Amino acid sequence: MNARIIAVGSELLTPLRMDTNSLAITERLNAIGIDVRAKAVVGDDLADLAAAIREALAHADLVVMTGGLGPTADDLTREAVRDVLGLPLVEDETIVERIRARFARRGWQMPEINRRQALVPQGAVVLPNANGTAPGLWIERGAGGLLLLPGPPRELLPILDTLIAERLEPRAGGRRVYRRVIKITGRAESHVDQLAQPVYGPWLAWDPPIATTILAALGQIELHLRLQSDDPARAAATLDGAVGALEAVLGDAVFSDDGRTLEQVVGDRLRAERLWIATAESCTGGLMASRLTDVAGSSDYVERGVVCYSNRAKTELLGVPGTLIDEHGAVSEPVAQAMARGIRDRAGVDIGVGITGIAGPGGGTEAKPVGTVAVAAVLREREMVKTFRFIGAREQVKYQAAQAGLDMVRRLLEPPRD
Amino acid sequence: MNARIIAVGSELLTPLRMDTNSLAITERLNAIGIDVRAKAVVGDDLADLAAAIREALAHADLVVMTGGLGPTADDLTREAVRDVLGLPLVEDETIVERIRARFARRGWQMPEINRRQALVPQGAVVLPNANGTAPGLWIERGAGGLLLLPGPPRELLPILDTLIAERLEPRAGGRRVYRRVIKITGRAESHVDQLAQPVYGPWLAWDPPIATTILAALGQIELHLRLQSDDPARAAATLDGAVGALEAVLGDAVFSDDGRTLEQVVGDRLRAERLWIATAESCTGGLMASRLTDVAGSSDYVERGVVCYSNRAKTELLGVPGTLIDEHGAVSEPVAQAMARGIRDRAGVDIGVGITGIAGPGGGTEAKPVGTVAVAAVLREREMVKTFRFIGAREQVKYQAAQAGLDMVRRLLEPPRD
Repeated sequence: MNARIIAVGSELLTPLRMDTNSLAITERLNAIGIDVRAKAVVGDDLADLAAAIREALAHADLVVMTGGLGPTADDLTREAVRDVLGLPLVEDETIVERIRARFARRGWQMPEINRRQALVPQGAVVLPNANGTAPGLWIERGAGGLLLLPGPPRELLPILDTLIAERLEPRAGGRRVYRRVIKITGRAESHVDQLAQPVYGPWLAWDPPIATTILAALGQIELHLRLQSDDPARAAATLDGAVGALEAVLGDAVFSDDGRTLEQVVGDRLRAERLWIATAESCTGGLMASRLTDVAGSSDYVERGVVCYSNRAKTELLGVPGTLIDEHGAVSEPVAQAMARGIRDRAGVDIGVGITGIAGPGGGTEAKPVGTVAVAAVLREREMVKTFRFIGAREQVKYQAAQAGLDMVRRLLEPPRD
Repeated sequence: MNARIIAVGSELLTPLRMDTNSLAITERLNAIGIDVRAKAVVGDDLADLAAAIREALAHADLVVMTGGLGPTADDLTREAVRDVLGLPLVEDETIVERIRARFARRGWQMPEINRRQALVPQGAVVLPNANGTAPGLWIERGAGGLLLLPGPPRELLPILDTLIAERLEPRAGGRRVYRRVIKITGRAESHVDQLAQPVYGPWLAWDPPIATTILAALGQIELHLRLQSDDPARAAATLDGAVGALEAVLGDAVFSDDGRTLEQVVGDRLRAERLWIATAESCTGGLMASRLTDVAGSSDYVERGVVCYSNRAKTELLGVPGTLIDEHGAVSEPVAQAMARGIRDRAGVDIGVGITGIAGPGGGTEAKPVGTVAVAAVLREREMVKTFRFIGAREQVKYQAAQAGLDMVRRLLEPPRD
């Protein structure tokens, strides 16, 4: 079974608000094997709403609508359904009584306009709303149907859960969606795809197929694997095999296949090996330390960090010789190494990291353009150092440089597999 | 003119990702008086994509599509446009050369699959992409047209801005949307609304009306003012008056009314006064330094920062006496003050900031629950110190604490107005 979601409300078409309900709805539908094939956001306009409903019913078994069930004149979902399906709206006295009682409990009289919320397309099933005045409405059509839900999450989710348990899950037949995410850093999207596509391409023809999506951002690429199955054990085994096959070609560029971030992966390794880390950052301005300490419990392995934005700070806090800076420039591998060794020694920790570069937009030269970043890491006597040329704006260069620093620590802790 | 937005990508139909591009696109279209009437999200499926394009073109003058222009086989926007409009795809050698040069600058060879990104629907205008490989494509139709944009925001927004300036704005007529944003920190939403609502409430009845929206997040509240007008001078004067009236009741809780972030406001003041700053952070883990250095040119006033996660680091790097930590606890106003003074003195700068707290989820006690953060700032001999009780998860506590540190520096630099 597949579904479409329509979120109703002109406020969702401004730059200020977005439809976040559909995420929780998708999660619940996926869990019983219902695929969301498209989503739409429509304003409070009768013709636009009717067109969206027609379009969705033409393409999906199940259509879930949120919002537009309020008492005011701009709440038009009921009327649009009436127009599309030709079902007259009938006032349901039971609903009126429930709304009246709800107001009475707060000592108020029900305003007359709330009667609108008791209008039901003829034949629809009324799904009581424990947390608000507008009930959900379910209009069965073939194997699926049209579901109208109020907009507030605390009202709509309990109604959806009831409908899923009572009507949708029994006909879903045990089918579920299973996902895995492989996270990669230090590679370009097209490079990853060139390696991965020959592996995942054929999976689309499998029964059941595995659908693979590549999500690329500067500094991180994700491969999303997705499988529908009615056999949890077989689904897990299939996905395990698929993840293993991708990791075999992608090698140590993969840092996570279990949802963890790079800072979590690094942190877990540091904790497991009982190692302490300290960072010395210039162009990243503390971002690597901040990301390391985004992880709960990171005080178990982060000893300190310094942000040595000035050359004086590099010398005073890390003992980087002024002559080294004069000779190679502040952005250079020797300086990054001296920073890494300096923070390791001064903090008395196992691992030191040094990052120095040009985040931009100013400060670039022909030899060292904006985006040039030298990263060094030392684990006791083992050292790694590399110069990167990152692209993007200042914040993206910072992010990629912090990512490179974290990844170098990961590689220092975990030698390449091949 | 009205518009529809179609976001392309199967990942946007999962519970994990959402289409956030449409917010910035809407903002830019609104600014030249173009209304967004509907939005859709479609997966990487040729038939679904074609149906969505057909539907959108039937209802809107301008259709903006984002995503699906990548090099891989699941990027199908070009093919869907070909199918709907009957325009053959032609390889554009200029684009191939641009992509090849882009790879070459990083020392890489262009993978063959990137040639897909040089396919252009016959007759489309190619809009160069300064920040990525896939160019934008513009297919003019009547008064409007179909615009294809790559998915990453840093790529699509500059392309959109160029199209707006060169092709859309000239035909939009004189009517524009004017906005102002007032940013506030250190106050609760209900507090702000209690002060502001009596001021902005009546503006809705003005001609033209000013619509006001409050957007609240932990650590920052924004008041968005919005006015439609065909008279730029009058619109500016009206909004100036409105902003002034709100600032009169909100006082020095307002830190920005010109779009600047808190770190920009602080940075601009530091540069203007030729002052240097250094930070000493514990629970924020370098986030305040990282935010200060997100601002281009911040090396003019950020001298250094230290992240003293361990007590030993507090003593070694800042000279905080171990006895002070023993007596008051690491999370205390005396320790925050000693950190601020210590970094000011050791860095030899004008301003020192100290932040120490419990970001959680562990580490809280009854007397000092998770979210307790002591913040101190010193400007030469002037000092401020305050203990906060922030709510939210670890990252939210970190953000609010960094925000409090920045705001304390702002207040130290700019005495209260009243």
